[in-house]
Amino acid sequence: MKSDLLDALRTAVGAANVLTRDTHDLAAYERDWRQRAHGRALAVVRPGNTAEAAAVVRACAAHGATLVPQGGNTGLVVGSVPDDSGTQVVLSLQRMNQVRAIDHANLTMTVDAGCVLQAVQQAAEAEGLLFPLSLAAEGSCTIGGNLATNAGGTQVLRYGNARELCLGLEVVTPDGDVWNGLSGLRKDNTGYDLRDLFVGSEGTLGIITAATLKLYPQPAATLTAWASVPSLQAAVALLGLAQQRLASGLTGFEVMGQFALSLVDRHMPQLRVPLWQTAPYCVLLENSDSESEDHARTQFEGLLEAAIEQGLVSDAVVAESIAQAHGLWHIRENIPLAQAQEGLNIKHDISIPVSRIPAFCDDTDALLQREIPGVRLVNFGHLGDGNLHYNVQAPAGADAKNFLIEQEMWVNQLVFDQVARYDGSISAEHGVGSLKAEHLTHFKDPVALTMMRRIKQALDPHNRCNPGRVLLP
Amino acid sequence: MKSDLLDALRTAVGAANVLTRDTHDLAAYERDWRQRAHGRALAVVRPGNTAEAAAVVRACAAHGATLVPQGGNTGLVVGSVPDDSGTQVVLSLQRMNQVRAIDHANLTMTVDAGCVLQAVQQAAEAEGLLFPLSLAAEGSCTIGGNLATNAGGTQVLRYGNARELCLGLEVVTPDGDVWNGLSGLRKDNTGYDLRDLFVGSEGTLGIITAATLKLYPQPAATLTAWASVPSLQAAVALLGLAQQRLASGLTGFEVMGQFALSLVDRHMPQLRVPLWQTAPYCVLLENSDSESEDHARTQFEGLLEAAIEQGLVSDAVVAESIAQAHGLWHIRENIPLAQAQEGLNIKHDISIPVSRIPAFCDDTDALLQREIPGVRLVNFGHLGDGNLHYNVQAPAGADAKNFLIEQEMWVNQLVFDQVARYDGSISAEHGVGSLKAEHLTHFKDPVALTMMRRIKQALDPHNRCNPGRVLLP
Repeated sequence: MKSDLLDALRTAVGAANVLTRDTHDLAAYERDWRQRAHGRALAVVRPGNTAEAAAVVRACAAHGATLVPQGGNTGLVVGSVPDDSGTQVVLSLQRMNQVRAIDHANLTMTVDAGCVLQAVQQAAEAEGLLFPLSLAAEGSCTIGGNLATNAGGTQVLRYGNARELCLGLEVVTPDGDVWNGLSGLRKDNTGYDLRDLFVGSEGTLGIITAATLKLYPQPAATLTAWASVPSLQAAVALLGLAQQRLASGLTGFEVMGQFALSLVDRHMPQLRVPLWQTAPYCVLLENSDSESEDHARTQFEGLLEAAIEQGLVSDAVVAESIAQAHGLWHIRENIPLAQAQEGLNIKHDISIPVSRIPAFCDDTDALLQREIPGVRLVNFGHLGDGNLHYNVQAPAGADAKNFLIEQEMWVNQLVFDQVARYDGSISAEHGVGSLKAEHLTHFKDPVALTMMRRIKQALDPHNRCNPGRVLLP
Repeated sequence: MKSDLLDALRTAVGAANVLTRDTHDLAAYERDWRQRAHGRALAVVRPGNTAEAAAVVRACAAHGATLVPQGGNTGLVVGSVPDDSGTQVVLSLQRMNQVRAIDHANLTMTVDAGCVLQAVQQAAEAEGLLFPLSLAAEGSCTIGGNLATNAGGTQVLRYGNARELCLGLEVVTPDGDVWNGLSGLRKDNTGYDLRDLFVGSEGTLGIITAATLKLYPQPAATLTAWASVPSLQAAVALLGLAQQRLASGLTGFEVMGQFALSLVDRHMPQLRVPLWQTAPYCVLLENSDSESEDHARTQFEGLLEAAIEQGLVSDAVVAESIAQAHGLWHIRENIPLAQAQEGLNIKHDISIPVSRIPAFCDDTDALLQREIPGVRLVNFGHLGDGNLHYNVQAPAGADAKNFLIEQEMWVNQLVFDQVARYDGSISAEHGVGSLKAEHLTHFKDPVALTMMRRIKQALDPHNRCNPGRVLLP
């Protein structure tokens, strides 16, 4: 039975592309990026094209096996690794990594799902164009995974999530049929929006094998500024002012709390964090200009001067060089690492309406201090999108491991209840996977959950695609 | 039975809001905007809030009646009028027309589905903000209908379709449950994208009762230009140049063929169409600037000078006043009316990848001339979105009515086959409704059609919501 399936898989993709534990070390496929889970796969199968991927799905269907689609396996919610049953087939898209076509005049490109995000960015750049999706894992995550999880990142403010950057998909359905929904069209009202149903479905409705993506002209200049602000309220007001004056030139607006920056300062002193000691929050702004660097700088300085006059900004610097700009982004991107060096912590990826973020933070900071005296909050994120990484660090001196073991569930409960109170989301950009599937049953609108279950049942009646992710059985 | 249902409906919304033909003239609810269909409703029911709308759906379910949701009833594909059985209930959203909330700092507003689009635009403007959805019917269409049909319009190039302008929905399901999916969040990855499944589903999966919409800062200045171009190829190249130099400042890019403009010139000489006599196509460009009118004008003139140097533009004018700008838009918007005055014609609302539009038009123009010597093509549309209104007018002197009767099906077949050949869509922005449901069975990917049917079956198993629209039984 098991060997029949392996034979069928070898027929589908060739013996060399069916990896089993007898012959290969599968650890990299079985362990998630944050090492929260270690599963056991029956096999890792690596199709080389869409027809092979469809054959793999049909083989699993014929033998009653379940599938776990996997791209770069960089997800943060345990959505792309097998369970520990030893019966699941990991379908790795890594060999499907070709750029199929670039249409310059249409500003689109069509790529295999297994293309690494950075390779997609570079292929666009080689055409003098921009693919704006950008996130920390871009060197190893795949575009298929980005779409399956509707990845966010640093430029959502201007360009939207992965969803908004996708015009069409090619998908292998749970039946092993191929839906050719690749499209270079910006307008198409011929029926239900299947594209956006698959985007963000985390491999539970089928397997994305290719996509047609939106491209943009490269900006003429991109400048980065760093500003200290007297309060989170001021940061929100600064965001509004920047949106009004820069319009869609504003491509980044990141907020960082003082304690988060103090950790970078402590553990990575060489990064030289500016302006953090005297302000509760700092903000990183990025301005992408279609005209020139001079124009971008004039615009940016005008904005910051106005903000200082209005008391929204205490002090600010505009990067004088690309190296300086990268340095500022580097500080922002190193917060998670500095935090890890400080010790284990409880991570959250939440979103709140921008207007309510200051009240949410005041309220929730105080609540956590009451419940866990001395607890330390590492608060940073994409303020322009209302997306905070609101992470909770053990009190100074406390044993971080025990803190996690004893407090994680309770802290999650406290934070998620607050998120619900403020009409937010418990997963802004990371998705649900296994890690938040249980939470979803408590925090998602029950009518929505019922519709989701009916759709899963309609498209994957035998629950073969990534079972137990997003929706619990 | 029938009277039991009417009693139940009266209980749900009050007798005064259940209109029947004994007491009211229902023609305006039973006839579609283009007068392609005249149905017969059992009753027109006008709920005043979401709870009443849900009670109407439950009453229909209990009595086995089917529902036709209706907003402004301005659709172009016969999607919002009852069939002629006299058994369907028209659920009119017109009484649900309140702006529920505006969140300035979050750049969102929440509105009832029955709000007229223009009222939504004005409510945003009163806050100094912009709701960018704009189309010819904005004075009478409703935002619920715009979302149910994923309306497009003139600013899709910059702001996207109705879909991209919606963050959350409130929906009454076919079971009569209320899904509260209203959300002011720009990032929320907690499960399947139900919002985008309902957007564009044309009332076949449930009834949209409210929405949370994206708002934008008002631009500091908006300028309009009119350019004659030597070819459609040049128009596409001009689009690329404009996108590069103006980036998202480019909020409109409309193309108009010489014959289309000649009809405006003939039937509305007072509109004074510029530059049309010597060029095969003219283009209307709109530049929205966040800085100032001076900056917008400098940018615009720089673009047009460069385009003239590159031979992409033969001649151009930039409107000197808002009145002049409105005048230019007025010409564009009056093409359909001028066309109607010239006589009945066969309308198409197609999209093609922008890069392939010149070849598509050369190819299809020639094909139609071969098949119907002397046929006249009224070709205009949103070139920036690849969306053409590629309309076919009878040869000069021919009887337009007979032409329609004899040729419409065949011309549709010829044009739609060409659209398929060029990887386009047979309905770019108008939707499917009844008018294109049959075509969909021929031109839609069969795997996609199967998934659409399964989703309809899963969410509306008794086929109660707008049966026969989008998907044929």
